[in-house]
Amino acid sequence: MTAQSPNDQTYVGVELCAGSARAALVSAGGEVVARRESAAPPEDPVVQVARLVAELRDASSAQVAAVGIGLPGLVSPATGRVIISSDLPSVMRGDLRAELAKATGLPVTLENDANAGAVGEYAAGAGRGSRDMFYVTIGSGIGGAIIIGGKLWRGASGFAGEFGHITIDPEGVVCVCGNVGCLETVASAPNIVRRTRERLMRDSTSSLSRLGLNKNFTAADIAHEARGGDDFAALMIERTGRYIGTAIATVVNLLNTERVVLGGGVMEAGQLILEPIIREAQRRSFQPNFESTQIVAATLGPDAVPIGAALLARDAT
Amino acid sequence: MTAQSPNDQTYVGVELCAGSARAALVSAGGEVVARRESAAPPEDPVVQVARLVAELRDASSAQVAAVGIGLPGLVSPATGRVIISSDLPSVMRGDLRAELAKATGLPVTLENDANAGAVGEYAAGAGRGSRDMFYVTIGSGIGGAIIIGGKLWRGASGFAGEFGHITIDPEGVVCVCGNVGCLETVASAPNIVRRTRERLMRDSTSSLSRLGLNKNFTAADIAHEARGGDDFAALMIERTGRYIGTAIATVVNLLNTERVVLGGGVMEAGQLILEPIIREAQRRSFQPNFESTQIVAATLGPDAVPIGAALLARDAT
Repeated sequence: MTAQSPNDQTYVGVELCAGSARAALVSAGGEVVARRESAAPPEDPVVQVARLVAELRDASSAQVAAVGIGLPGLVSPATGRVIISSDLPSVMRGDLRAELAKATGLPVTLENDANAGAVGEYAAGAGRGSRDMFYVTIGSGIGGAIIIGGKLWRGASGFAGEFGHITIDPEGVVCVCGNVGCLETVASAPNIVRRTRERLMRDSTSSLSRLGLNKNFTAADIAHEARGGDDFAALMIERTGRYIGTAIATVVNLLNTERVVLGGGVMEAGQLILEPIIREAQRRSFQPNFESTQIVAATLGPDAVPIGAALLARDAT
Repeated sequence: MTAQSPNDQTYVGVELCAGSARAALVSAGGEVVARRESAAPPEDPVVQVARLVAELRDASSAQVAAVGIGLPGLVSPATGRVIISSDLPSVMRGDLRAELAKATGLPVTLENDANAGAVGEYAAGAGRGSRDMFYVTIGSGIGGAIIIGGKLWRGASGFAGEFGHITIDPEGVVCVCGNVGCLETVASAPNIVRRTRERLMRDSTSSLSRLGLNKNFTAADIAHEARGGDDFAALMIERTGRYIGTAIATVVNLLNTERVVLGGGVMEAGQLILEPIIREAQRRSFQPNFESTQIVAATLGPDAVPIGAALLARDAT
């Protein structure tokens, strides 16, 4: 092995999800050199990460300096341990970081997936060139992260940016967090499906009804029908956008970051959801704040978390 | 005049309101040396500030180095001009800062009153010792300000911290800002009175009804009756606290500052309003974030804005 300058180093970033794990070999500048993916359950996350890292090392002659993991949970800044993960309970165990470091032989950084996604989009995606950014990810859950002056703003607990638990409807549905009417109770992918099912019980004019109430259709199916011209599906996506836009208005009013970047699976509905988000945010936010905030879709797609996790690993070493 | 070190300098801080102007001579360390007050309308704000500054100069042998003004409006960071002030239209004119500098012979700094109050409480009041703070002022309007790492966080427009325009009830009352269901539409002093009047039309068991529906009672009167044991008045204050607490939960979830400080006239209701604010904030916020955020009442009362404005003038010179 020849000596390499730090700029020749690469980093492995991994996104651990309930359904899969995605890994990327990332340059120090945030470019993806190679990708690997694997189905997750019921495999142990340590075994899974170790294999993905080994595969990526085999795929490139570049030296891997560290591994960063983005996961759907809260990582305690004090202990480095995962303290809450409702989506992926297998990562809530003793010292996961130490286990991963031992299994890969590399320094490992653990980070909340929304934080990692924010760092990825800020460095290499839709946040590029902005000073301050709010990042939102809308998928099976809803997360958020704040970047101020180029750095994650973590708040007093380390868990600032809890966008999904903003109250949208004070008299709404009970959330897993215990609150009532959180954004997540109406706008996450499973809750888009729930709302759609409830409406379909009363209204069967949609092409979705052809799918039948018992078929396990997804939020992506609803977006697909909406793009295909189904009015009812389009209404459900539009209404979801308005919920999200109400919460975005709060971010615009309070934080007024230069940019707001929206990512996650639900945003794959494209303009059908982005347009009502922006319209509702404009309606509900203070005009000078709205005019100084750019609200845009994320551009890295599934690369956001692996890239961000890799860059966080770079910064930690 | 003898030469003085910068620490011997004093600064005049002025709070301009629709109903009055309060001025204080403030040491470089944030201590009030002397106070003056005057009824405001219909006097010209330049004449008023010049006279208050002259009175405070006469009251002390200390040298005055600069004047800071806190006012209910938005001050453009780009031009230094007041661009919006629904409460005090007389300050929206040409170059107010230059007029005031000419009239007082001193450097003048203009600042939004919530920002000035935040700086006051952070330096010399309930924010002391915290690293990061969110400040809320609830009076005839509702304002907010963010201090991160010891400095005002102004956002991209300069107007971050617009706490009063957080949507609390998406189907609620139209706000002056054009949005529907802003916190200000239910929790500002005039809106507490409005809600109370509306309820009194339907319920006359309160001691407030003795005041008669046509009497111009104030939010302070309602708080007074609540303290005196009137159940209905207490209910109105409690409900107001719950509205504010819902918005505070959003601050706790998103920003998770180490401290949240609540000031302004409405907070003079004391524990009767602080207790439901904290209870609702706890109910609606993410637990680790709530546990790491102290929610406390402001301690400087009417000195907050003059002290903060004076310290902002100090930092600008």
